[in-house]
Amino acid sequence: MTRDDDSHLVETPLASEKVFSGKLLEVRRDRVRLPNGGEATREFVVHPGAVLVVPVQDDGRLVLERQYRYPVRRVMLEFPAGKIDPGEVPLATAQRELVEEAGYTATEWKRLGTLHPEIGYSTEFIDLYEARGLSYVGSRLDEGEFLDIVTMTEDELLAVFDCGGLTDGKTIAALFAWRRARGR
Amino acid sequence: MTRDDDSHLVETPLASEKVFSGKLLEVRRDRVRLPNGGEATREFVVHPGAVLVVPVQDDGRLVLERQYRYPVRRVMLEFPAGKIDPGEVPLATAQRELVEEAGYTATEWKRLGTLHPEIGYSTEFIDLYEARGLSYVGSRLDEGEFLDIVTMTEDELLAVFDCGGLTDGKTIAALFAWRRARGR
Repeated sequence: MTRDDDSHLVETPLASEKVFSGKLLEVRRDRVRLPNGGEATREFVVHPGAVLVVPVQDDGRLVLERQYRYPVRRVMLEFPAGKIDPGEVPLATAQRELVEEAGYTATEWKRLGTLHPEIGYSTEFIDLYEARGLSYVGSRLDEGEFLDIVTMTEDELLAVFDCGGLTDGKTIAALFAWRRARGR
Repeated sequence: MTRDDDSHLVETPLASEKVFSGKLLEVRRDRVRLPNGGEATREFVVHPGAVLVVPVQDDGRLVLERQYRYPVRRVMLEFPAGKIDPGEVPLATAQRELVEEAGYTATEWKRLGTLHPEIGYSTEFIDLYEARGLSYVGSRLDEGEFLDIVTMTEDELLAVFDCGGLTDGKTIAALFAWRRARGR
């Protein structure tokens, strides 16, 4: 939501270098011009973008995953999500991830918006979709990928949240966006 | 929400090394044992944890910031938030950030829960607080920190979200948590 009169806030790039390139992560360090003319350093993860799917069964139950997330050292409850492959349009990523991870195809797709999960140090955006008209065709997990599929009603998921059992930021934000799109 | 019977999901560390250490970011690369006995590599940002504050004025208006976020190259609407300093308890961080960034002290503090903004590649958690009983005492921004303070009603903030003007994941998740705590 940058506006025309935001010049007192905007930083402009002066120089950029790749400072780490691993198997999963790429980190850049940029020098920037501050609004007051000074300079500063910004370090951040360069990310291709991702999608998240809110899969809704015909009976209204939501499809989620339970997956061990090593950085936070615990099993997390999440909506299906994944990184956009090079050249892939986000809707195609959403359709691919829903079948690969959760094992469902869907006939109805609706955009629910976009979120930025980590604006302090990542370029990542996540495009949010609702998927309806689900058919179970079986998952095709990547080698080394392990997860459980669970289904629950909206009220059950809200109860899990209220008890502290749902802490994944993208899933909470997607649940909010999905409820707003339905007038809640 | 890891359970006793989650051994088919859990990864265990085998080795760990620091692969990048910058001014802001530290990245580690670990070898892990997969549930099926195989091995894999995990790269992730090591983060000290953060807090976020939902500041509520006596008239019900919410205090937010508009701040340029270089990684996403735009001005973002956010609740006040910041990193936990070494040895600091999260509530002290919340009180410090609310006065430093937004310029308010508060007499009533309430925990709203915890979220994990980026479980794919960061250890970061964010403890959420509501702050009431606000008094304006003036902000004390860090050198090189530039932001605008805005206040809006809950309905105004929801309208901004519905129009796509609120995409910061932590702020959306905190808005959801704050509304749930009030029975919405």
